[in-house]
Amino acid sequence: MSNNSEAQQTGLKAGDKVVLGFSGGLDTTFCVKYLTEEKGYEVHSIIVNTGGFSEEELKKIEEHAYNLGVKTHTTIDAVKGYYDRIIKYLIFGNVLKNNTYPLSVSAERLSQALHIAEHAKKLNADAVAHGSTGAGNDQVRFDMIFHIMIPGVEIITPIRDLKLSREQEIDYLKSKGVEMNFAKAVYSINKGLWGTSVGGKETLSSKGMLPEEAWPTQVTASEARELQLEFRKGELVKVDGKEFSHPTEAIQYVQSIAGPYGIGRDIHVGDTIIGIKGRVGFEAAAPMVILKAHHALEKHVLTKWQLGWKDQLAQFYGNWLHEGQILDPVMRDIEAFLESSQKSVTGTVFVQLLPYRFQVIGIESPFDLMSSKFGKYGEMNTGWSGEDVRGFSKIFGNQTSIYFQVQEDNTSNA
Amino acid sequence: MSNNSEAQQTGLKAGDKVVLGFSGGLDTTFCVKYLTEEKGYEVHSIIVNTGGFSEEELKKIEEHAYNLGVKTHTTIDAVKGYYDRIIKYLIFGNVLKNNTYPLSVSAERLSQALHIAEHAKKLNADAVAHGSTGAGNDQVRFDMIFHIMIPGVEIITPIRDLKLSREQEIDYLKSKGVEMNFAKAVYSINKGLWGTSVGGKETLSSKGMLPEEAWPTQVTASEARELQLEFRKGELVKVDGKEFSHPTEAIQYVQSIAGPYGIGRDIHVGDTIIGIKGRVGFEAAAPMVILKAHHALEKHVLTKWQLGWKDQLAQFYGNWLHEGQILDPVMRDIEAFLESSQKSVTGTVFVQLLPYRFQVIGIESPFDLMSSKFGKYGEMNTGWSGEDVRGFSKIFGNQTSIYFQVQEDNTSNA
Amino acid sequence: MSNNSEAQQTGLKAGDKVVLGFSGGLDTTFCVKYLTEEKGYEVHSIIVNTGGFSEEELKKIEEHAYNLGVKTHTTIDAVKGYYDRIIKYLIFGNVLKNNTYPLSVSAERLSQALHIAEHAKKLNADAVAHGSTGAGNDQVRFDMIFHIMIPGVEIITPIRDLKLSREQEIDYLKSKGVEMNFAKAVYSINKGLWGTSVGGKETLSSKGMLPEEAWPTQVTASEARELQLEFRKGELVKVDGKEFSHPTEAIQYVQSIAGPYGIGRDIHVGDTIIGIKGRVGFEAAAPMVILKAHHALEKHVLTKWQLGWKDQLAQFYGNWLHEGQILDPVMRDIEAFLESSQKSVTGTVFVQLLPYRFQVIGIESPFDLMSSKFGKYGEMNTGWSGEDVRGFSKIFGNQTSIYFQVQEDNTSNA
Amino acid sequence: MSNNSEAQQTGLKAGDKVVLGFSGGLDTTFCVKYLTEEKGYEVHSIIVNTGGFSEEELKKIEEHAYNLGVKTHTTIDAVKGYYDRIIKYLIFGNVLKNNTYPLSVSAERLSQALHIAEHAKKLNADAVAHGSTGAGNDQVRFDMIFHIMIPGVEIITPIRDLKLSREQEIDYLKSKGVEMNFAKAVYSINKGLWGTSVGGKETLSSKGMLPEEAWPTQVTASEARELQLEFRKGELVKVDGKEFSHPTEAIQYVQSIAGPYGIGRDIHVGDTIIGIKGRVGFEAAAPMVILKAHHALEKHVLTKWQLGWKDQLAQFYGNWLHEGQILDPVMRDIEAFLESSQKSVTGTVFVQLLPYRFQVIGIESPFDLMSSKFGKYGEMNTGWSGEDVRGFSKIFGNQTSIYFQVQEDNTSNA
Repeated sequence: MSNNSEAQQTGLKAGDKVVLGFSGGLDTTFCVKYLTEEKGYEVHSIIVNTGGFSEEELKKIEEHAYNLGVKTHTTIDAVKGYYDRIIKYLIFGNVLKNNTYPLSVSAERLSQALHIAEHAKKLNADAVAHGSTGAGNDQVRFDMIFHIMIPGVEIITPIRDLKLSREQEIDYLKSKGVEMNFAKAVYSINKGLWGTSVGGKETLSSKGMLPEEAWPTQVTASEARELQLEFRKGELVKVDGKEFSHPTEAIQYVQSIAGPYGIGRDIHVGDTIIGIKGRVGFEAAAPMVILKAHHALEKHVLTKWQLGWKDQLAQFYGNWLHEGQILDPVMRDIEAFLESSQKSVTGTVFVQLLPYRFQVIGIESPFDLMSSKFGKYGEMNTGWSGEDVRGFSKIFGNQTSIYFQVQEDNTSNA
Repeated sequence: MSNNSEAQQTGLKAGDKVVLGFSGGLDTTFCVKYLTEEKGYEVHSIIVNTGGFSEEELKKIEEHAYNLGVKTHTTIDAVKGYYDRIIKYLIFGNVLKNNTYPLSVSAERLSQALHIAEHAKKLNADAVAHGSTGAGNDQVRFDMIFHIMIPGVEIITPIRDLKLSREQEIDYLKSKGVEMNFAKAVYSINKGLWGTSVGGKETLSSKGMLPEEAWPTQVTASEARELQLEFRKGELVKVDGKEFSHPTEAIQYVQSIAGPYGIGRDIHVGDTIIGIKGRVGFEAAAPMVILKAHHALEKHVLTKWQLGWKDQLAQFYGNWLHEGQILDPVMRDIEAFLESSQKSVTGTVFVQLLPYRFQVIGIESPFDLMSSKFGKYGEMNTGWSGEDVRGFSKIFGNQTSIYFQVQEDNTSNA
Repeated sequence: MSNNSEAQQTGLKAGDKVVLGFSGGLDTTFCVKYLTEEKGYEVHSIIVNTGGFSEEELKKIEEHAYNLGVKTHTTIDAVKGYYDRIIKYLIFGNVLKNNTYPLSVSAERLSQALHIAEHAKKLNADAVAHGSTGAGNDQVRFDMIFHIMIPGVEIITPIRDLKLSREQEIDYLKSKGVEMNFAKAVYSINKGLWGTSVGGKETLSSKGMLPEEAWPTQVTASEARELQLEFRKGELVKVDGKEFSHPTEAIQYVQSIAGPYGIGRDIHVGDTIIGIKGRVGFEAAAPMVILKAHHALEKHVLTKWQLGWKDQLAQFYGNWLHEGQILDPVMRDIEAFLESSQKSVTGTVFVQLLPYRFQVIGIESPFDLMSSKFGKYGEMNTGWSGEDVRGFSKIFGNQTSIYFQVQEDNTSNA
Repeated sequence: MSNNSEAQQTGLKAGDKVVLGFSGGLDTTFCVKYLTEEKGYEVHSIIVNTGGFSEEELKKIEEHAYNLGVKTHTTIDAVKGYYDRIIKYLIFGNVLKNNTYPLSVSAERLSQALHIAEHAKKLNADAVAHGSTGAGNDQVRFDMIFHIMIPGVEIITPIRDLKLSREQEIDYLKSKGVEMNFAKAVYSINKGLWGTSVGGKETLSSKGMLPEEAWPTQVTASEARELQLEFRKGELVKVDGKEFSHPTEAIQYVQSIAGPYGIGRDIHVGDTIIGIKGRVGFEAAAPMVILKAHHALEKHVLTKWQLGWKDQLAQFYGNWLHEGQILDPVMRDIEAFLESSQKSVTGTVFVQLLPYRFQVIGIESPFDLMSSKFGKYGEMNTGWSGEDVRGFSKIFGNQTSIYFQVQEDNTSNA
C-alpha cells in the first residue's frame, strides 16, 4: 500500500500518538489497522455515545478495538451533555431544517467531535483521525472543530485521502487477518437520541420513498392513544404524569411510545456544507412529537414578535449548526435569546398518536394568553370597544393611505 | 331600535347611497334591513365569490338581497383575480402562518374588500358597509382597505356598533317579515378557493379537536393514490398530465381528488390583528398538497440562500397580509423578489395520497441541482478533491479558531 | 369651558385622585388648572428627570406645581435607572434609528411613562393624565404603557381631547390668575441624558437645516483633541483614564467635552407611530461619539455573524422601542442576546474630536481578533496556505457553479 | 527557478493559451515573464477598467504588456457595465459594509473577474491566471468566478503559489532585463468609479489614522457649497441641473466637486472572506454623498417596512457581494426587490458640502409622504382624531397588556 496520495501529513512519525474517532464500522476499522500497521502510530480509539448504542454494543466495540491493536479505547457517555449543550436549544427553537429535518445527525457529529478534541487534548496527542469520506458533511464538521479546539494537532483522514473502495478496504483487512461482518447493509442507519437517519438507493436520486422494511422501527401500534407532555420553561419534564430525572429520559420514553406508530418518518432534501444537494430518510418519532407539542404551547404563551424572532434566529441556528459552526460565539448569543424566551413556556400539551401521524389536541397553561378572560376570538368583550378598533384600523393603515393619495395626486397631475 | 350607540356616523342622511358587502347570512341580512328601513339609505349589495359559492348559491343570494330591498345587487366572480393577485404569491412563498395555516380566510377577505371598494368608487357611494363584529380580524381588514382605497367614504358597521345578540337580530328580522333559515349551524364554515375554515365550541378554548362530523368534507377515499403535479415557474399548470387553462382549475382539481382523503385538516392557533389569540379549525387539502409539493421542488432547484431569504420574506408577507396590509408597497417589492425566484421552479412533483395524510415521493426537473453529474452525497466525485474540502474546512472555521486562541490567551494571561 | 368633547371620561367624579405627568410647560400647567378647577379632581403631579433638568429647575417646577394647586408633587431622579433599563441596550446595539437618530426622546418618554404608572399604582389613583397632543408619538407611548401597567385606570388627555390652541390655553390660564412665562420659544427643545431634540420651522417641511443659533450647545471648541473611551463588557467605564462610579457619569463627561465641538448635530426624518413622516433636529454629541466608538470596538472583537445578527435585532429593538413597545417580552429576549454578545467588548477606543466632526482613530483590546499573530490582511502567513484558500474557493462557489452548469445544459438542450 | 511548489498545475503544457488579468504592477508583470519564459505558455493579457485608469495610463499598460512578450493584450472599458450590473444596486440598497465602506474594491474585482472569464471563454483558453497573493479577498473572488463561469479551465496563481518576496520578484525581473519603476509606493492605492482604497502602515494594525498626505485627493476646497442631486427611480440623473447621458458621468461629476472637500475619507475594519479581520483606508466622496442623499430621499418616499426590508436585504447583498458571491441567483432576486422599491424614489436632494464633511439639507419630491396635506408632526390635523389614536394605542398594546395580566395572575396565585 503506497502512501503517495497522502502527501500532506508530513509532521508525523512512527510512534506518534493518534486519537481516532471509532465506531467499529468498516471505515474506522480500516483506519486502526492502517494507522498502526502501515504508519506505526500509537492509536487511541474513542467512541462517543449520543444515544444510539446499547451498553452491550459499546462493549463489543471496545473488544473489537483492542483486537485491532489500539493502545487504549475510551467510551464516552455523552447523552446528557448532548442534550444540555445542543438538543435543548433545538427544542427551544423548534428547529427543523428546511421545515422538515430535526438535524439528528448534524447535532450528533458536533457533540462527538467536541469530545474527541477534548480527549486528544487530554492525551496530548500528536494527531487526531476520523473516518469520513470526501463527499459528505461530516468531514467538514470534524475538521473544523479540530482546527478550532486543538489547532496545530495534525488531522488524519485515511478514507478521504486514500480514496479506497469498500472492496479494497475489505481485502486489506482480510489480508491482515481481521475478522468482522463484512456484509454491506442494504440501508445505512445512524441512530441517536434525536432521531435515526436511513440512507439507501431510494435516497440517492431525486425521486423515491423508502420501502416499509427499510425503516428501523416497524409499525406495530394501531390504536389511537393520547399522550400528555408537560413542559417547564421549555423543557420536557413529565410525560403522561411520569416525572423524569432528566429530559433525555423523557425523550426516550416518548420515543418508546410513539416509535411503533411509524410517526416522524420523512425524507429530507438539503444543502450540504460543500454545496451539493443531498437526500436522506429519517425516522424521528420523539423529536417530531416533542417539537410540534412545544411549538403549540409557545403559540399560546408567547407574543407575536417572540414567535417571529424565535423563528428567524432558530432557522439560522439550525443551519449554522448543520454547517458545523457550533463554536461561533454568535451561537451562545442566540442561545441566550432562546433561553430568555422560554420563561413562560410552561404547561401541558395533549397529543393524539395514530398510525403514521399524530395531532396536537390542545394545551393547558397558566401562561396561556388565549384565556377567555381577555376576550374570545369572534365574540364581543369588555376590554375594548368597536370604536377602539375603528380608530386602530384608521391609524394602522394611515401610512399606506397617505401613500395612495400621493400616488393618485401624481397620476392625476400627469 | 335606538341609534344612540352609533354616534359616529354623522355625515349621512336618508337617501344616501351605501354599498354593502353581502353574504346572505344573518348579520348582513340584518344590515340590509336596518340600513334601508331604519336609516333610509339606498343599499347596493355586492357579493364577491372567491371560490366558495356555486352558481346556484349565488343566484339564491341575489334573490334574497332583492327580497330584502336592495336597490342593486352585484355578483363578482373574483376567483381568477384572487389567484393572480394573492394566492400565486402564497404558493411562491410556501406561506403557512405559524407553520400551519394557509391563510385561507385572511386572503379571501382582502380580495373581497378590494372589490367592494372598487364597486363603491364606481357607484360613487356615500358610504360602504360591512357586517363584521367587533371581535375579529375582518373588521380591521375591511376598515383599513376602505380607508386606503376610498378615503373620505363613510364606513358603516351596524353589527359592531349596535352590539346586538344573535337573538336580537332574529327578532328584528322576524318583526320585519323576513323569511330565511334562522337556525344556527353547530359549526360556522367559511369556504373558498384556498381552504375552508371551521369554528365550533372546540375551537373556543385552548384544548379540543373538532369531531369527525364537523369537517365539511367527509373521508371517503381509502386507497393510496399517486398524484403528479407539474409546475412551470412556480405555478401549477398540469395535474396527472391534464393541462388546465388557469391554475385555479388545477387547484380545484387537486381539491376534488385530495379532499376525500381528509388531508390538510388542522387547528391553527394564531395572533389576531387586535392582539388576542384565536383558534380556528380548517381543512385545506389542495393548499397543503400544493404547498408541500412546491416546496419540495424548490429544495431541489433553488440555492441555499434563495431558500433562506424566501422563507424570511414569505413569513413576513403572510403575516402582513393576515394583518390586512396587502396595499403596503413593500408587498409589491416582496412579490418582485418571489417572482424572480421562481425562474427555475419548473418540474414535476410526485405525491402519494393516503387517508388523513400524504407524502412527497420525489421530483423530476431539468433544473434539479441534485443531478448526480455533480457528485452524489456520500460518494466521491471528480469535481473536487478531499484536499479541497480540507482547505475549505480550515478557512471556513478560521475566524472562530482565531476567536478561541484569543480567548485562551486572555485566560492564560489572567 | 364645555366638557362636551371629552365624552369618553365617564367613570370619574369630583374628588377622584389623578396622577399627572408634569413638566411645568404650558400644556401640563393647563392640565393642572383644568383638572382641579373644572373637574374638581385631586391632582398629584410628578416629574421624571431623565437627565434634562438641573436641581434648580426641578425645584422651580415643584414650586410652580404647588402654586397651581396640586395636592402633592413628586420628583423622580430616573437617570441611572433610565440607563440601566434602556440606554445600556441602545449602546450594546449601536442603535440609530434610520441610521441617524439615537432615539433620544423616544427612550426618555418610556422611562417617564413607567415611573408615572408606578406612581399611580402606589397612590392607588383613579386616573392618570398626560399632556400630549393628538398628533405625535408621545400620546401612544403614554397611553400604551398605562394600558399595560395599570389597566383599568382611566387615562385623561385634556390637550388632545379639547383641541385647544396655544392662545386658548394662555387665555384660560390668565383668567385663572396663573403667572408664568407665556412667550413661545422659537425652537422647542427637549433635553435628556441621551441627546437633545430641536424642533422649529425648518423641521416642519421636507427641506431646511436648523440655523447655527437654534442649536442648544454653541460651538466653542476649535482645537483637535483626543478622547480615550474605555469599555468593559460593552459599558463605558473610563474616559481619558478617569474612572466613573456609573456609566451615566461617563456619558455626561463625554457630553461636556464633545458638546462644544458641535458634534452629533443632524436632522432625523422618521416614521411616527401613527403613520405620518416627521422631521426633527437633534444634537447628541456624547451618544454619537460613544455609539461609533463602541461599534468600532465591536468590529474588532466580534465575529462576522455576531455583528450581522446584532444589527438586525438592534434595528428591530430600536424601532419597537420607538413605537412604545418596550414592555413586549420579546424586548427582554433581545436584551439577553445583546448582553451575551458583549462578553468580549472590552478595550479602549481612541477618538479625535474636531469642530463639527470626529473620527475613530483605532482601538486596543485583549480580545482584538485582528491580532497580527493570526495573519495580516494582504500578507502571507503561517496559519493556512494558498492551497487551502484554493480549495475553499472551489467549495465555497460549488453550488452556484452547479447552478450555472444546469442552466447551461437547459439552454443548450433547448 | 524551481517549479516544485506548484504541484497542482499538471494539466498544462508549453504552448498552451493562458489569459492573464493584468494591471501592469509588479505582481502581474512577474506573472507575464514567469508564464511565458519559465512555462512557455502563450499569454494573453487583459485589463478591465472600472473607472480608475485614464486613457493614457491604459495605453502605457498596453505597451508594457507587449514589451513583456504577451501574445495579445486587451483593454476593456467596463465602467458603464460595472454601474449597470453592480453599482446601481449598491445605491438602491444604500450599501455600506459595516455601516462604513461603500465596497469600492470588492465590487470592482467582481466586474473584472467576469470580464476576464468571458475573455478566456472567447479565446478558448486552456488556463486563466491572476496575480493575487494568498492573504486577501481577491484570490477568492477570482478563483470562484472562474470556477463558476469557466469550470474546467485551469486557474494559475504564480504569486500565491511561489510565495516570492517583493525583492525576489524584482531580482527575477531584472535578470530578465525588464525595465519598470521598481520603487515601492509608501501607500498602496486602488482607484475606481466607486472609491479609492488606501493601504499603508497605519492600516496594518488596529490603531492609527492615515496622515493627510496619504490621501490621493488633497483638500483644496474651503467654501461651503450647495449641491443638488436629482434622482429618477433611484438613479442619479441630474446634478446642479446638468443632465448626464449616463449615471456614471453624474457620479464622476459629483466626485470632481466633492473630492477636493476631503469628504468620504474613513477607515473600514472588516471581515475578510478568509476569516481574518482587515483594515483599509478609503476616500469615496461621490459614493458617500450619493448614498446619503439617496437614503434621505427614500426616508421621505418609502413606507416604514420598505425601508426596513431594504436595509436587511441590502446588508446581506453587500456582504454576499463582498464575499464574491455575485453569481448566486439569490442576488438576482434581491435586485428584483430593490428595483421594485425604487418606483417612487424620484426627486431632488439638497446637500451642503463643507471641508471634510457634508450635510443633507432636505428634499423635494412629488412622492414625498411628509406632505403637510396629511398632517404635520406635532400638530393636529383633520385625517384622524385623538379618539382614533386612543383606540389605536389600546389595541396596539393589547397583547402585551394581556401578557402582563397573565403574569400578575400567576404571581398572585403563587
